[in-house]
Order: sequence, then structure tokens, then C-alpha cells
Amino acid sequence: MAPLESWLVIPGDSDFSLSNLPFGIITSRNSPTQRRPAVAIGDYVLDLLAFSQGRGFSGLSSFVQHLDVLSQPTLNAFAALGRPVHREVRAYLQEVFSERGRYAGVLRENEELKRSALLRKEDTQTHMPMQISDYTDFFAGINHAFNVGSMFRGPANALQPNYSHLPVGYHGRASSVVISGTPIRRPNGQILLDPTADPVTPSFGPCRRLDIELELGCFLCKPNVLGEPVRIKDAEDHIFGYVLMNDWSARDIQTWEYVPLGPFNAKNFGTTISAWVVLADALEPFRTSKLPNQTTVLPYLQEAREDSVFDIHLEVDLTTPDGAATTISKVSGRNLLWSFPQMLAHHSSGGCPMAVGDLLGSGTISGKSEHGGDLGSLLEMTQGGKKDIMLAGMDTRTFLKDGDLVTMRGVCGEDGARVGFGICEGRIESAVMF
Amino acid sequence: MAPLESWLVIPGDSDFSLSNLPFGIITSRNSPTQRRPAVAIGDYVLDLLAFSQGRGFSGLSSFVQHLDVLSQPTLNAFAALGRPVHREVRAYLQEVFSERGRYAGVLRENEELKRSALLRKEDTQTHMPMQISDYTDFFAGINHAFNVGSMFRGPANALQPNYSHLPVGYHGRASSVVISGTPIRRPNGQILLDPTADPVTPSFGPCRRLDIELELGCFLCKPNVLGEPVRIKDAEDHIFGYVLMNDWSARDIQTWEYVPLGPFNAKNFGTTISAWVVLADALEPFRTSKLPNQTTVLPYLQEAREDSVFDIHLEVDLTTPDGAATTISKVSGRNLLWSFPQMLAHHSSGGCPMAVGDLLGSGTISGKSEHGGDLGSLLEMTQGGKKDIMLAGMDTRTFLKDGDLVTMRGVCGEDGARVGFGICEGRIESAVMF
Repeated sequence: MAPLESWLVIPGDSDFSLSNLPFGIITSRNSPTQRRPAVAIGDYVLDLLAFSQGRGFSGLSSFVQHLDVLSQPTLNAFAALGRPVHREVRAYLQEVFSERGRYAGVLRENEELKRSALLRKEDTQTHMPMQISDYTDFFAGINHAFNVGSMFRGPANALQPNYSHLPVGYHGRASSVVISGTPIRRPNGQILLDPTADPVTPSFGPCRRLDIELELGCFLCKPNVLGEPVRIKDAEDHIFGYVLMNDWSARDIQTWEYVPLGPFNAKNFGTTISAWVVLADALEPFRTSKLPNQTTVLPYLQEAREDSVFDIHLEVDLTTPDGAATTISKVSGRNLLWSFPQMLAHHSSGGCPMAVGDLLGSGTISGKSEHGGDLGSLLEMTQGGKKDIMLAGMDTRTFLKDGDLVTMRGVCGEDGARVGFGICEGRIESAVMF
Repeated sequence: MAPLESWLVIPGDSDFSLSNLPFGIITSRNSPTQRRPAVAIGDYVLDLLAFSQGRGFSGLSSFVQHLDVLSQPTLNAFAALGRPVHREVRAYLQEVFSERGRYAGVLRENEELKRSALLRKEDTQTHMPMQISDYTDFFAGINHAFNVGSMFRGPANALQPNYSHLPVGYHGRASSVVISGTPIRRPNGQILLDPTADPVTPSFGPCRRLDIELELGCFLCKPNVLGEPVRIKDAEDHIFGYVLMNDWSARDIQTWEYVPLGPFNAKNFGTTISAWVVLADALEPFRTSKLPNQTTVLPYLQEAREDSVFDIHLEVDLTTPDGAATTISKVSGRNLLWSFPQMLAHHSSGGCPMAVGDLLGSGTISGKSEHGGDLGSLLEMTQGGKKDIMLAGMDTRTFLKDGDLVTMRGVCGEDGARVGFGICEGRIESAVMF
């Protein structure tokens, strides 16, 4: 597919090419209080409220009845219109921004509309794109599951018997999901200071094994009612789009607390998502096969197609407080045993009602790691905290120090037609005193 | 404390005496679409919106500025006003309804206001009292934890080492919390049909071990921001009130799915709460001591007082499809190792932000069970499904059958001054076909 050419100058290496057009929520310097929907394009942001108020959508008659969704402070109302509408709006905006687009004149020839609606990115601020109803985190990254399971139970028993039969997941904490850029405070919690010497007497204090988890997040746009499962064949219709996600994890708190009911305070002090929701349609060209599952899955999880994950090039940078940045991981987003449609079909199979704005996390994405460099958590990179990772500036880490900045990136496609996520980052602040 | 006498006829055995005045959300026969706050009293419901529109709150000048909270479809806005306001409003309404109350004339002498605001319960319908932000379920019923742990690991290892150090909990699914009366559909899920013969090959089909969990639920009324824990000394200020809760559980789904991340689809197909929120102040007279903890808890969990749970008389009835009802459990709500203030202090100790409308569940409440009859789940009553329980009409159960109705009740205090919860019930519908 030849890249779409825009009349707007879009840097070739921009995540936000005309092939992307991700949706987010902004305020701007000239309108700093009203949160409203926007689309990112190159170094610009199209303020969709201003665009609609300036009659920018007059060429898309089917959408005119829905313009009220553009005065909402989250994308939930827009998402709830459903995938056919997202598709039409995105296609229309591609025509608006294309050099030879049918609607290129709508904005290019309208100086007043350009002034009001086409904002420079640096004049805007992003906010949480969705009101998250419930957040569920899965464990679909089989390499991660294997690596972590091996640490606790050895490679022969690394994966539990259920792992290849169902997408294992747990309910997360919606309230602690924050947008990229939000500082993350190191949590206090119950910790075994020396688990070998004393495995039963915890202390309370700042986490000493603060970790990252590189994940993809998926926002839903269509609900189901209690008792009525979403069938696997319909699951794609429920997917609004994707974000990058860092599911910060306190490993020492987790080790002590998680039996028998799973992770709790080890996870609920912060989960960072990227600001721009990449629509499901924008990722369509980058479909690829899931990792092979030797188990024949039960019919309710059988997909019509195997290429139900995406070949997203993911990267993680760690920047130390002195400013030195090191790329500590590069891995493809295809390293999943389960797709989001499967996660959704499983999640709702017992009748659980899913809502517009629900967030599903993939679980940590790691590669096969013969040589390292493709792992999604420090726990794996450091073999459980036993081995330092080397950073720029002769620095090392096992787990995160105060002041460390973690930046995740994800991108598909070639320069000029990149479909990227922007950044997902957060800096660690010191723990509060008790 | 002598019972408060009302000019309204309140049956002596009513859960909703003048000492109670729980808050809920209603619609009524004459206004069937607008959900609005109300208070239950005897066989009546005071429509707070109509009461305020008829100037019923004119005697409570401090509240007049807040009357907009009474036109909301949930209690969240009222809850967010904080405990001092809940206390004032409840005390005022007690004066309105008391035989010799200072404000007895406000309603008793105003026929028009009585007509518009004082509704017969049978002319109203209750709705979800709160918009639930996040729902967390704890495991603070130590007798239940011991009984269930014994089944899996024997009595010597029944409780995990962390159990007496922290209130174990997990994030639940807010979207599947429903109000009393909502039918509960038997979930489908992955099940091991004969775990002894084949512990690794699941089937997919209707749950065969459908269970109840008798719990107390606690609604929060005050938020904290990300990174700023709620201290134990302040925790009571965050508690709005309490409901009964039935955390329906699919035991066979749970057994297979729950390693290593905890319960998921075994719990998210429905959680029933009672309709009326009993305000924290209404339960004050019924404080009692928690069960003794041999472990000295860490300072952040140390309460100023030991009497931080409530002596609520809880009961569970099982009514079979032919209409025969049997009381299968009677147990006191004091059977907890951890109080709600401790749960809240722990939950937020790492910085997790709690919101107005968050729901915390106690975990299943069981007694010591020397003789049975005081257990909060069928799993315990039937010793893991091995022993039938006997029901009225020569019927038996291990787990629930389609058409079974489970009704929970909870009450404190003597006739004429009872502080009760009303009912928390749901009937089992057959599973959907896949």
C-alpha cells in the first residue's frame, strides 16, 4: 500500500501518519478547561469539537446526527457509536488530510477552521482518553508466563495446566489507570526483607523490587448484558482500539500477598497507558499469527482466523535520573498465545457484562529471549533480580530507582505510513512516609 | 436506648425502624422513570426528591445548599457530602418521623407533602443504590478461610502465612454487581468433569457447583488521590454504609481457572447486593470485637479500638422451585479477622486511589461450625460437595439447582428498634446454550 500523502507536513518518522489517525482527549492553551476529542496527525492535533463547530463534518452526512459525542470529555460516547462509524469518520478524515482527498478543501482551504481546529501538538495537553469502567489484565504473553513460572517452579512446570486452555486473567483496578506522563509513586507495602531467612514475618515499607510490565491495552466499544456472552465470531465488533500499557508491579509485595487470591496491592498503585487510542481499523494491515498453541482450544475460543494479533514493534527505554537513556527491550507485539477477541469471548463466557470503556490488558509481552533484549519486565531481564542489567553511563539496575523514567513505544509499518502509539511513560517518585 | 416512637405505624419486626433509616434509590408507580434517592421506614418509603421539592428540608438549613444531590439517579453525590452531612440528614429525618420530634409537624401535618413524598413500599421499585467505581472482595472471614483452606491443604496448613498479617483481597468485577431481585444466570465455563480421573482436560458447559457466599458489603463516600494512602485513623470517615452481599461463586470454574492469578469468571457472572444502604452511623450501637488475631499487626493496620465489626444477625434461606424454604445458615457478622477500616487502610497503603461508590466485600462470613448451621457457603456446608444438606419438603442440595432462590437477611437490635438490611436475594436461571 503506497503511503497516503498529506497536504500537511508530516515528518516521515511520525507515529501519527495519515495511515493512523488515533483518537484522544485534549485541552489546549486557548481552551484549557474543556476536555474534548481530538485526532493526532504528525506534529498536529485536530480538535474535533472545533472542527465540528466549524462545519468540518459537513461532508459526512451520516455523522452529523452524532456530533454531540465530540463535546464529551472522554471518547466513550464516540466509541459507543460502533466500529462502522469509527471507520467512516477515520476514512473521512483521511480524505480531509490527503493531498488529493475528496474533502481536502474542507480544512486546507478554510483558514478560519485551520486556526480554530488544527493545533500544534505542543499547544495541547492530553488527558485520559476513556472513562474506564472495569479493567482486566490477562496473562497471554506465553514467553513471560513461562519465564516467570520457571523462576518459581522450574521449566518443566512453568506453565499451569490451564494456561493453554484459557486466557488466564484477573480483575485489575480501574481507578489506578493513568495517562502517560503521570508520576508513579513507589508504593509502600508488606514485604519479606529476607524471604530465605524468614519467610513468614513481613515488614512494612517502600517496595524494593519495583518493576515494569510491557503490555498492550484494548478498549471496548460495545457492551453485552449480564448473562449474555459475547461470541467469538462477534468479538471484533466490540473492540474500539489499542494503547500501550505499563502495568507497574511491586514484585516483593506481590510475592507475599498473592496467595491464594492473586495480585492486589502489587498492581493497584498505578498502570500507565499511552494517550492516543489507535483504532482497530488502523492496525488491520499489521495482523499476524499468534504464537502456536499445541492444545486444541474449546469451540467457544476458536477464531475464524489465526492472524488475530499484531506485529507491533515495541520498545522500552529506561532513563536514569542523570538523563542517560538505554533501550532495554525490543520485542514484537505478536508474542501472545491468545488474541484480544479470545480474551473477550472468554471473559464474557460466563455472562460477565462488558461495558464501553472497559480496558483489557494483554499481559506482559516478552520474546523467546535466547539472547535477552526482548523481555517485557525487569524480573525477567535480571533473572529474578539476581543479575544486573547494564545501562548507558556505566549505570546498572535490577529494579527501578526513584527518579527513573520508563518510556514505552510501539509502531507498525514503514516511514511515511507509520501507525504508532506515541509514548507511554512515567517517572518513579519516592514513597510516602508512614 | 429506648426505641424511638414514630407517629407513623411501623411494624415492630420491621428492619426499617426509626433507628435505621437506610438510603436507597427508587422509582415509583406515579414516577416510573426518574430514579431518585429515598429512605426506607417501616412499610413506607420517603421519596427524598419529592420531600425536598415540597420544602421538607426547610428545617435543616445546612443541607439546603446540597439539595441537588437528591435529584441524582444514584446516592454517590449524597455520599460524597461526607459523614457529618449523612449524620445530620438522618438525625433530621428521625426528628421528622418521631412522635415527639422537633420537626414532626413538617410531614405529619402536611397532607400534600405526605401524598407526594411518603410512598407505600409496594408502589415503589428499588434500583442500584450506588454507581460502583471499583469493587474489591476481601477474605476477612477467618472461619471460612480456614474451612476452605482445610479442604485443599488440611487443617495444619489451612491458612496461608500472610493471612493474619494482612487482609487478603482481590479486585472484583464492578459491572456484575446487581441489586437484590435480579435473576442470576448459571454461568458456562471451563470445568474438569472428573478432576481425579483427568485433572488437565477441561470441558465447557454449565457450572455444576454453583454456590453462594454470605458477605457484608461496604460503600465508600470519600476519595483519596493516587499515591496518598488513607490512614487507619481516618478510615471511618471514608465509610458511607453497608449492604448485604451474595458473591455467587462457580466452584468448578474456580478450581480450574484460579491458578496463579486468582478467581475470575468463577465470580464475575453476578454479585447481588441488598437495595438499602444502612448508614455507618446506624450500625454504631452494634459494634463488637473482631475475632482475636494472635499476630501483632503492623502499625499501619492498628486500630484505636477493637470493636470495629458489627454484631449483625445474618441468615440465609434457600427456597426450592416448589416454594419450600429452609433457613440454611444463621451467623453473626462479627466473624471477621479484619474490619472494613483495616481493609481500606491496607487497600490504599500502596497509594491505590479509592473513589466515592467503591464497594468492599468482607469475604464469606462463617461461624465456628461445631454443629454446622452457621456457615456462609454451600461449599462449607456440604464439605466440598460430599455431603447433602437437608431441606424442607424432603429435598436436598449440594450446590444450587436452576430455579432455586437464595435470600439473605441481616438485622441488629430488638423489635421496635431494629436496624436491618431488608433482603438480598436472587433466583438461579438456567445457563445459556452455546
